Amino acid sequence: MTDKILLEEQDFLNAALSGDNSSRKSLISKLDQYLNSNSRDLLREFFMRLHPADSAQVLEFFSPEKGCAFIKNLDLEDQAKIFNYLPADFEAKMAQILGRRELAKIVSAMSHDERADLFNRLSPEQQEDILPALAQAEREDIRKLASYPEDTAGSVMTSDYSALQPEITAREAMEKLRREAPDKETIYQSFVIDENRKLIGVVSLRELLVASPGVQVREIMNSKPIFGRAEDEAEEIADIMAKYDLMAMPIINGNEKLVGIVTFDDVHDILEEEATEDFHKMGSISGHGESITGVNFLQVSPWLLIQKRLPWLLALVFVNLLSGAGIAFYEDTIQAVVALVFFLPLLIASGGNAGAQSATLMVRAMATGDVQAKDWFKLLGREVGIAMFLGAGMALAVSFIGVFRAGPEVAVVVAMTMMAVVLFGSLVGCLLPFLLARFNMDPATASAPLITSIADVGGILIYFSIATWLLGINTAT
Amino acid sequence: MTDKILLEEQDFLNAALSGDNSSRKSLISKLDQYLNSNSRDLLREFFMRLHPADSAQVLEFFSPEKGCAFIKNLDLEDQAKIFNYLPADFEAKMAQILGRRELAKIVSAMSHDERADLFNRLSPEQQEDILPALAQAEREDIRKLASYPEDTAGSVMTSDYSALQPEITAREAMEKLRREAPDKETIYQSFVIDENRKLIGVVSLRELLVASPGVQVREIMNSKPIFGRAEDEAEEIADIMAKYDLMAMPIINGNEKLVGIVTFDDVHDILEEEATEDFHKMGSISGHGESITGVNFLQVSPWLLIQKRLPWLLALVFVNLLSGAGIAFYEDTIQAVVALVFFLPLLIASGGNAGAQSATLMVRAMATGDVQAKDWFKLLGREVGIAMFLGAGMALAVSFIGVFRAGPEVAVVVAMTMMAVVLFGSLVGCLLPFLLARFNMDPATASAPLITSIADVGGILIYFSIATWLLGINTAT
Repeated sequence: MTDKILLEEQDFLNAALSGDNSSRKSLISKLDQYLNSNSRDLLREFFMRLHPADSAQVLEFFSPEKGCAFIKNLDLEDQAKIFNYLPADFEAKMAQILGRRELAKIVSAMSHDERADLFNRLSPEQQEDILPALAQAEREDIRKLASYPEDTAGSVMTSDYSALQPEITAREAMEKLRREAPDKETIYQSFVIDENRKLIGVVSLRELLVASPGVQVREIMNSKPIFGRAEDEAEEIADIMAKYDLMAMPIINGNEKLVGIVTFDDVHDILEEEATEDFHKMGSISGHGESITGVNFLQVSPWLLIQKRLPWLLALVFVNLLSGAGIAFYEDTIQAVVALVFFLPLLIASGGNAGAQSATLMVRAMATGDVQAKDWFKLLGREVGIAMFLGAGMALAVSFIGVFRAGPEVAVVVAMTMMAVVLFGSLVGCLLPFLLARFNMDPATASAPLITSIADVGGILIYFSIATWLLGINTAT
Repeated sequence: MTDKILLEEQDFLNAALSGDNSSRKSLISKLDQYLNSNSRDLLREFFMRLHPADSAQVLEFFSPEKGCAFIKNLDLEDQAKIFNYLPADFEAKMAQILGRRELAKIVSAMSHDERADLFNRLSPEQQEDILPALAQAEREDIRKLASYPEDTAGSVMTSDYSALQPEITAREAMEKLRREAPDKETIYQSFVIDENRKLIGVVSLRELLVASPGVQVREIMNSKPIFGRAEDEAEEIADIMAKYDLMAMPIINGNEKLVGIVTFDDVHDILEEEATEDFHKMGSISGHGESITGVNFLQVSPWLLIQKRLPWLLALVFVNLLSGAGIAFYEDTIQAVVALVFFLPLLIASGGNAGAQSATLMVRAMATGDVQAKDWFKLLGREVGIAMFLGAGMALAVSFIGVFRAGPEVAVVVAMTMMAVVLFGSLVGCLLPFLLARFNMDPATASAPLITSIADVGGILIYFSIATWLLGINTAT
């Protein structure tokens, strides 16, 4: 299995790419061998057979230094394509190693949006270094695209769109698209602009192809296209494109001028990043500073993870101190019936678990747009019903354990508490996301650990209140 | 703001669609009025101005009965388009109300994949009812597509693709696409097949447009296209399409014959559903039976939610009973130093929280493909380092509280326990997803509540062991 890798062993390569360790090792040693023996042609042939996304993955098996050594053997266009698929960190490191001259060449061959993305990841010195090496038009384009704040439509759009004048015919439009095809991100949607670059319509290549050749673009275009604004959130644009199944969405600036388009392949990345962020927030991982999304998780620095995790853990300590205070308040009750402590973890955990379920459902339903703040009353009613039922089921289960373990009196206390804590936890889990949204905070901040900690405090107070009350009465009689 | 709704009040309509209650109410009353006065033209005009996705949303403001009354005023094509955007439940209810004759007409006007989806949601009686009303070819197509198991590529693909023969020229191909355009899901990617319908290549409309008109399709097609198989998981297909930025992916059957394509607009839905499922699992909501994804959350029945939540809550009761057992074992220690109970919720919650963070990061990284089972050793090492640091930070924080609350001896116990439980929780959170994956279970089953409950048990044992040991020694001296 040596030279065959280059020729036919697609399965072998797939195994290496999808994580098979031994295939990966032989692939690495094979490529190392080509590199050491300066087998430029073999390297070119190897990488040219791969999709650029796969080439990028293969480069990541190596160090950024070796990555540079490999791609130097390829054509500029292929280099640029592979760069587009590299993870942010790796790309920035390779850019640094390549040096300004090489980098400027690759950047010139990139698509406009990828170019601006890379530019944003370079250090200010690197940015200053490569700008003079670019053509005037490219320089301006890069400055314009790179100037939009992160996570806005402006930051993900590309200026490689095809624009048409309304008065040309379908035939002329097709001819123009044929000429421009190699340089454009997509030619399947064209954007119709007036003399001031104002967006006045959208026309698809399908419509142009079907139309009779002499008809004007104006007559077949959709004159009420769905558009976004450069300052809109990228997430919002992605949601709209997903809702209407759009292949490309035009983006206009404050003067209503067309400045770029967002294409369907950007939508996946944006939606995936959004889902990951919500997921992390639900696990109490978030905070300011660098993002841990959009970067390969294996390459996230431990220090960054500590920064994202420690503040939350410490903040929750204070919530949990309230639990301690609750216990201190009822210390006499505990001393009187130590058996109560047996059920403590079970009861507070059940409230927390029910609350985590409820919060998870709400947060995700709000993120996908299924549920909005105005629905809270309706959902609250449903949640109360569900929680009563869940609580009753749980109470039944624990009352058996209670009787067996500590007699009927404690069993009653435990069953009543279970009912109450499941209801309490569910309501907190259901309401907190809505409250956060109402105060313009991200509902996903109502994370499972936060809900669990709040449910703990409530659970302890409920448990010992009921116990003191019920067992107190029993002791008196 | 009455008739203007129909004409210019786009903002008003947008407000109603994005959840503004008063706009929604006036819109509802307006449409009700049209319906009652039989203003067929006004209704047609209203719905024809809307994107079908928006029309579907407007119908959902009403009952399925009224929804049927509204769409009966529209052209068949528009009815079919709106149907495509309705949520599954609502669609099935409307189908029932419309009756077999009307339904068969709408189904005939639908795209192939949507048609098969609707068919799968109908009751067996409804299915039998409408089949005879369809044309022979449609009947076979529907049976074929509807026969693939849910969540496979076969169940989401469409058979509305355009197929080309390799020996025709680019000009002939363009001419064929122009004729077929209205009936095809996409004409931007064409699929080249041999006489046995075996997939031999893919060619884009861009390539056809740019090629010289006389050249054969065979010469410009990509003869090593990325393809999927009908029995592959839809999720897998969506991931590959997202990775390679594919607009459409050909799907072949066991005989290597082309049977359908999956298009980019299906990818969003699949990925979103996948993310929602993982999210729900992380919150301990899952189980067999009906899915609660792909349906508007407001319309999920309370009974289904109880079915999804109660089994998990009950299962976790048993894990938490172990916590009770741990406490029972150390009852003497507790009775000797009741002050220890003060710190109990804080310590076990901190272990659980650190574990939930760790599990969240792992589960998501495994879902996005950043991390694979073979990486576990590397990540374990990193996690130990991070957890030591987090534990040390937390120990420092609680030792102050410990000294203040219960003296230096308890403070030492609490600090040591904190260190240990954070480490324990983090390791459980990090390892459990990998273990599940190794046994071919979904890593997302390592939910935050499960991790929290396991960390509770471990935390109690660690806490009282350290306390008995350290305080025991101190009592002896």
